[in-house]
Amino acid sequence: MGFHALDEKSLVRYIESTPSLSSLLGHRLHEGLSVKEVGDGNLNFVYIVVGDQGGSFVIKQALPYIRCIGESWPMTKERAYFEAMTLMKHGQLCPEHVPEVYHFDRPMALIAMRYLKPPHIILRKGLVAGVEYPLLAEHMSTYMAKTLFYTSLLYLSTTDHKSAVADFCGNVEMCRLTEQVVFSDPYKIAKYNHWTCPYLDRDAEAIREDYQLKQEIAELKSMFCERAQALIHGDLHTGSVMVTANSTQVFDPEFAFYGPMGFDVGAFLGNLILAFYAQDGHANTRIERHEFKKWILKTIKETWNLFQDKFIDLWKENWDRCGDAYPAEIYSKPELRQQVQQKYMQELFHDTLGFGGAKMIRRIVGVAHVEDLESIQDAEKRADCEHQALELAKMIVKERFNFQTIDEVLAAIIEKNVPTSLE
Amino acid sequence: MGFHALDEKSLVRYIESTPSLSSLLGHRLHEGLSVKEVGDGNLNFVYIVVGDQGGSFVIKQALPYIRCIGESWPMTKERAYFEAMTLMKHGQLCPEHVPEVYHFDRPMALIAMRYLKPPHIILRKGLVAGVEYPLLAEHMSTYMAKTLFYTSLLYLSTTDHKSAVADFCGNVEMCRLTEQVVFSDPYKIAKYNHWTCPYLDRDAEAIREDYQLKQEIAELKSMFCERAQALIHGDLHTGSVMVTANSTQVFDPEFAFYGPMGFDVGAFLGNLILAFYAQDGHANTRIERHEFKKWILKTIKETWNLFQDKFIDLWKENWDRCGDAYPAEIYSKPELRQQVQQKYMQELFHDTLGFGGAKMIRRIVGVAHVEDLESIQDAEKRADCEHQALELAKMIVKERFNFQTIDEVLAAIIEKNVPTSLE
Repeated sequence: MGFHALDEKSLVRYIESTPSLSSLLGHRLHEGLSVKEVGDGNLNFVYIVVGDQGGSFVIKQALPYIRCIGESWPMTKERAYFEAMTLMKHGQLCPEHVPEVYHFDRPMALIAMRYLKPPHIILRKGLVAGVEYPLLAEHMSTYMAKTLFYTSLLYLSTTDHKSAVADFCGNVEMCRLTEQVVFSDPYKIAKYNHWTCPYLDRDAEAIREDYQLKQEIAELKSMFCERAQALIHGDLHTGSVMVTANSTQVFDPEFAFYGPMGFDVGAFLGNLILAFYAQDGHANTRIERHEFKKWILKTIKETWNLFQDKFIDLWKENWDRCGDAYPAEIYSKPELRQQVQQKYMQELFHDTLGFGGAKMIRRIVGVAHVEDLESIQDAEKRADCEHQALELAKMIVKERFNFQTIDEVLAAIIEKNVPTSLE
Repeated sequence: MGFHALDEKSLVRYIESTPSLSSLLGHRLHEGLSVKEVGDGNLNFVYIVVGDQGGSFVIKQALPYIRCIGESWPMTKERAYFEAMTLMKHGQLCPEHVPEVYHFDRPMALIAMRYLKPPHIILRKGLVAGVEYPLLAEHMSTYMAKTLFYTSLLYLSTTDHKSAVADFCGNVEMCRLTEQVVFSDPYKIAKYNHWTCPYLDRDAEAIREDYQLKQEIAELKSMFCERAQALIHGDLHTGSVMVTANSTQVFDPEFAFYGPMGFDVGAFLGNLILAFYAQDGHANTRIERHEFKKWILKTIKETWNLFQDKFIDLWKENWDRCGDAYPAEIYSKPELRQQVQQKYMQELFHDTLGFGGAKMIRRIVGVAHVEDLESIQDAEKRADCEHQALELAKMIVKERFNFQTIDEVLAAIIEKNVPTSLE
């Protein structure tokens, strides 16, 4: 059977004829089956399917174009294959934070996976609402440490690594999309770019004229294109995570490929920084979101520090059967081992800041914005938040090699968070 | 037909039954056909085939193990496929310096290519004999600039680049071999390591104990494994080049894959530096090879400078249809363009020094040595040359980021070339 786009009706027929799915729902399928389309993302159709005996799952189907733009921007539906492969691989490495895949149909570009029931919500929506998630840093640091460490040459042999790299080269269309929207469009006049007019007109122009910034962006882009460091999620913003007080689930890895680790860590931290700067736009008084802003900063700090600790712990645990990058015999002396680990984490930290800044910039002057900022109704207030975020982002891209610790980054974030014109 | 190793007799039958080869030799094949096995390399069998009507070619067959070690070190014969693909690709980009491929038989791991007739000799043998090649820098800089530029993202689209990267991930066995002999074995006690005993015992030990060096080697190794910058030759030492006064031909790219450009440029320059330090071992007086040493230094300098100029010229020529790394619209301003090009070349220079130094070290304390040094009969004299080369190599690996120009490298080379104990 070839590809056909499903709607709510044809989806039911598809489920009926797919035993691995219908068996999840129990008997008497026709009666009491609830199917709801909930895709609010930019790219795909997503259905929640719930049976009347408690069985449930989510069906995600990729269409051969970008949903939020339409058929005028074609996009290979093969992305579903890479998403399914990554969900399964990352799920195997970190089952506690990745939804289980029940079924994958490559010709149909269709994935059935665990339904993350309420009260799970998209992390970004929780951050807009000002909700704290005390375990977020703990969970996300675990997810990133495990998925990145175990797919890198710190754990894998060159043979396994190159074979996986070759497979994921096939996800080139999604890499091209990232290259365009993250590393190219914001730095030129581009059709789909937009920003808060007229307040940010000068900011957008300044970005197009900032030679030092464009130099750094070029180097980050080359690293994105050339460096096959680990199987990265590829789109790890706060809209790719669902949370409750106790649960953190990472999904939507359709941009996954072997790329630089800092692109994932930076995407997550960069989106937390955007959430931070957006808070003043959601508050009516500076005091209103004050505690929540402190929690975001604490979460940024803990996410990085816990990630670093857990990553190094995995490295230590796996030292003797470690991957081809650092043969145990050569790096056996404790001081040397510590030295190479420190250097590795320092470089990853700098990559994280560079990619994190790039991801922030593109969310303010590029094609796809974030709800954190878009939901601020007052344009001038929104522009103030965005301007601060842009200033921080440009600075950490350009000055990233001067930062040694996440505390220095927090200090810089606070420094740019000046009282706004409306206060 | 499956694989079978040829000998001189079965080779003639193979040629007879292969029209693309027999047609090169003309009629009356049986009579006057000269077949000579000349493989002096580490890995393969090589036959020169000459007909009595002037037709000729070389047949190279890969065997499923490493020739110089024997069947105890198996090695995939698929390397012949990657060699043939690279000869054809590099030959298309730079036909003046790559021998033409007439025929490729993948199951037989067999390549037929142009016979580089006398007076062509292996460059390394010319350097041992003290012969100057006035066009060497000109030719090698052209070869490296063209093959590296046109296979990088400075020229290619991401789509073409990722597809080629994926193909060459298949040459993983050869990458593993490089990782082992260049980046691992010299830094530990390893079965096949050897050096000029007892004179270099302390030098070899010092390398195994040099934490800073091992740190840098780890980073170079990661770059070798992870960074798919261009289709590199992968083994570009002076034994992979044949020369006459007017001709320079690069062959044997069986280690080719998408890797860091500096690995090729560094291999070539590093081997020229080894040739330089070997000269005092071939001279009976310090004056004897004095002029030749000056020529080697001049060639090192010109090779880098011409390479840099030609590489940037190709970049400028191809600016408007340039690859995905630096979109013309974003980097259109002349000052910015110059700035990104300078930065690119500076990083490539530092990579070149790092890989060049690593390639020198492995030729002195690793498994495979070079004739430049091995042909020095007097062990103490040889050890003096090797010690100087090692000191320079360790220094440029560790201090490479402090070098700005090739002149500074030449000064460092000369500084380490102290009068030896025998003078």
